[in-house]
Amino acid sequence: MSDLFHLALNPASETPVYRQVANGITNLIASAAIAPGDRLPPTRELAGRLGLNRTTVSAAYALLEEAGLIEGHVGRGSFVAKRESHEKPAMNWEAILPHVESDLLHPVQKAEISFANSRPAEDAFPLAPFRRLAKQVIEGPEAAEILQLGSPYGYVPLRRYLLEQANAAGIARDGDDLVITNGCQQALDLLARLFTPGGETVVFEDPVYHGLVRVFSRAGANIVSVGVGESGIDVTRLEETLEQHRPRLLVLTPSFQNPTGATIPIDYRKRIVEMAQRFAVVLVENDMYSELRYHGKPLPTLKELDETGNTILLRSYSKVSFPGLRVGWVIAPRAVIGRLAEIKQISDLHSDQLSQAVLLRFAESGELAHHIERTRRAGRERLIVVLRACANYLPVGTKFTRPEGGMSLWVELPAPLEAETLLSRVQERGVSYLPGRYFSARRSHLRGLRISFGGLTPQQITRGIQIIGEAAARELKARAEEASFEPAAALV
Amino acid sequence: MSDLFHLALNPASETPVYRQVANGITNLIASAAIAPGDRLPPTRELAGRLGLNRTTVSAAYALLEEAGLIEGHVGRGSFVAKRESHEKPAMNWEAILPHVESDLLHPVQKAEISFANSRPAEDAFPLAPFRRLAKQVIEGPEAAEILQLGSPYGYVPLRRYLLEQANAAGIARDGDDLVITNGCQQALDLLARLFTPGGETVVFEDPVYHGLVRVFSRAGANIVSVGVGESGIDVTRLEETLEQHRPRLLVLTPSFQNPTGATIPIDYRKRIVEMAQRFAVVLVENDMYSELRYHGKPLPTLKELDETGNTILLRSYSKVSFPGLRVGWVIAPRAVIGRLAEIKQISDLHSDQLSQAVLLRFAESGELAHHIERTRRAGRERLIVVLRACANYLPVGTKFTRPEGGMSLWVELPAPLEAETLLSRVQERGVSYLPGRYFSARRSHLRGLRISFGGLTPQQITRGIQIIGEAAARELKARAEEASFEPAAALV
Repeated sequence: MSDLFHLALNPASETPVYRQVANGITNLIASAAIAPGDRLPPTRELAGRLGLNRTTVSAAYALLEEAGLIEGHVGRGSFVAKRESHEKPAMNWEAILPHVESDLLHPVQKAEISFANSRPAEDAFPLAPFRRLAKQVIEGPEAAEILQLGSPYGYVPLRRYLLEQANAAGIARDGDDLVITNGCQQALDLLARLFTPGGETVVFEDPVYHGLVRVFSRAGANIVSVGVGESGIDVTRLEETLEQHRPRLLVLTPSFQNPTGATIPIDYRKRIVEMAQRFAVVLVENDMYSELRYHGKPLPTLKELDETGNTILLRSYSKVSFPGLRVGWVIAPRAVIGRLAEIKQISDLHSDQLSQAVLLRFAESGELAHHIERTRRAGRERLIVVLRACANYLPVGTKFTRPEGGMSLWVELPAPLEAETLLSRVQERGVSYLPGRYFSARRSHLRGLRISFGGLTPQQITRGIQIIGEAAARELKARAEEASFEPAAALV
Repeated sequence: MSDLFHLALNPASETPVYRQVANGITNLIASAAIAPGDRLPPTRELAGRLGLNRTTVSAAYALLEEAGLIEGHVGRGSFVAKRESHEKPAMNWEAILPHVESDLLHPVQKAEISFANSRPAEDAFPLAPFRRLAKQVIEGPEAAEILQLGSPYGYVPLRRYLLEQANAAGIARDGDDLVITNGCQQALDLLARLFTPGGETVVFEDPVYHGLVRVFSRAGANIVSVGVGESGIDVTRLEETLEQHRPRLLVLTPSFQNPTGATIPIDYRKRIVEMAQRFAVVLVENDMYSELRYHGKPLPTLKELDETGNTILLRSYSKVSFPGLRVGWVIAPRAVIGRLAEIKQISDLHSDQLSQAVLLRFAESGELAHHIERTRRAGRERLIVVLRACANYLPVGTKFTRPEGGMSLWVELPAPLEAETLLSRVQERGVSYLPGRYFSARRSHLRGLRISFGGLTPQQITRGIQIIGEAAARELKARAEEASFEPAAALV
């Protein structure tokens, strides 16, 4: 059992520490250094021995329990699971199955005030119109058709509606087509499967939505990243990167980027479109949030600015309506959409038609526009509150973005603070957020963190930022005291 | 334009002839041998010149129109599309995009009596209970939760219900877990992505459901196949194949296999499970149809027979309820399910929750069991009718399977008849089916065809088989006459 107290942990690794702990214990079980039925040390004890936070060890135990390797008994502690006796030897799954990165399956703990969830305010949630319109669909003449197999391109009336809307808005061009996907995540997955099956290079923003990196890294793409500032991706670095790497794809979120909230200004948008043409890179525009603008003037999409019509536009109803109904879509030249529909058909035949029909009613009835207006009002109020709270409560030296819309902003803590350590402090006081690691394309963003303010009340936002600010100040003070007791660097 | 009359066509190719025609015309357009604005010859004329059926040329034109390469004008014919003038050169998508096999996007034409669609009878379709139960879900307290993001493992209450059912039936074992997918198609896709990312070998039945082959061939798997007879896969050949190829996966549909309707008897099931263990091959049991048994005794699944618990079981509500609501699930050891859920999350975060909640109500309320009973009654009647019609109307020398359930049977035409040629004959009389090529794992099945009888009335079935029989007899007679005018083989 004492092996447990000597697990090799590497804080600099990209693998989170709780997962390193879980891996170490898995190895001890596999090598029979710990036997079935053995009791594991309490989380507090192991945390103390390893010099870790208790929540880190708890997360490791939770992971092992989920994997069936240990069993928790309330009041008695955790035990190594007894192996079932089989007549035949069980398959050695671990030898067969590839490792899949799984951070997102184990997100940060639940908290009273969670800045971790990027979702709109609940008080603005349109449950009543959903109920009314969904009942119309169910009772309507289309119900029988919805329940039969559909097209891989999507539910025909919704596809037609979205395409007409996009044509009317000048977003779709002659020769463009549209395919409906299970939210934006599947659109990204289909694009990765289509464009990067052979290790092609993709350029991302960094920090960036982690699901986007995972989908391309799993597809085997070569990932290159360019930093994001207050005006979105660094266009000078982008140009150098395109020239040097000649990537197949450039994936951008030009408006209210997740996690930074940054928006690319019009001049930079034009430059990016021009660069994409010059270097023959396929531009993928992830346009999830542009409807959620609270201040300033709406900007044209890259798709509208790209006169070649080659930009691939991704949109979704998830962020502005019902995240649980998985409906997104892609607008692109017909050759691209045809291929995407073919891969879509291989993946899951087609998207669920009931949700598509309900969302169509929601859009056609005007309830969607109505709801977006309400969400904007709620978002505008919360954005003002969160920016004021950041200015008032976060310690001197903290930097944070000032978005004009969306649901998140990005905070950079002053050295030597680290977002992950601070998280464990504020969690004790019922507050959580996602640390920078979750948004890493290449860089580790140790001091960065995302504050998603959309789903909280103004009171919660103020209180939460205050708690983060207090914890940060305390931590800074403790570090300063520690430092004053340490020998100076020159003496080491 | 005369180039069009000299397209190089290869009837022996795996690429269907209509697609070869479309490819040939695409090349002529690309090489400027045909110019934008040129009028294409009428389908009848081109068919005559190329010695093809007119429907083949129509299908090629339809494909080109969908690709935007030609434009059809009612009454005036088809024209090569004019290129849009761009300020910037358009991306050369064809150079960038990989070819994706797309047969299934262009299935056989609509017909009055279609044996092509594998779906249950419409008169048994449970629209009224769907409407009642869906309204309960929408008005119920769970609605708000359903509309928020969910778990990659599936909607929690449905997952719990399915796992409890599987435990109670002895199908799930200790250590098993369950993940919900967008129908069985996504389950196969996730398995292909998990188990065969590096060209691993998969063994299939042949003939087999084409979507299954496509998903694994797209994932890059090495596909090996074993023939199917009246008792399902040939177990002697299977054993040789497993020994020789040592595959990673063996994918079987033991009950009412699509397309043959064949069911593997209990002794062979036991042998297959033993073989899988002996050769350490992962057994994937595609169990879509076993609820639709019309005669004889239910058989245990391979999953139940496999005492190691390693078999991966795929099930779905699509075939027995609402195909348009995409809900299937996988039961397997926890290590496998955890990985599948991770890939599921990368693919599309999670399945649509509204449909999952509606299907849960459908199952819990007893309506599903009720509906399956009705579908069975309807299927039993139709099976008797289709077998009688095959015996009465198909020409001497025709072979056909005699399933005990499911929705399809398999017909082998006597030489020199070919299923594709016969199809073009019966389509003129409003009947269609899927020719053997659609179910090819390796072999071409030129004489084979699938008759899906589930969705037709007994009258339609009898009439449709009669038309097929008459066309077959006529074709046989014509071929015999041709042969008598041809020089004998020895003289050539």
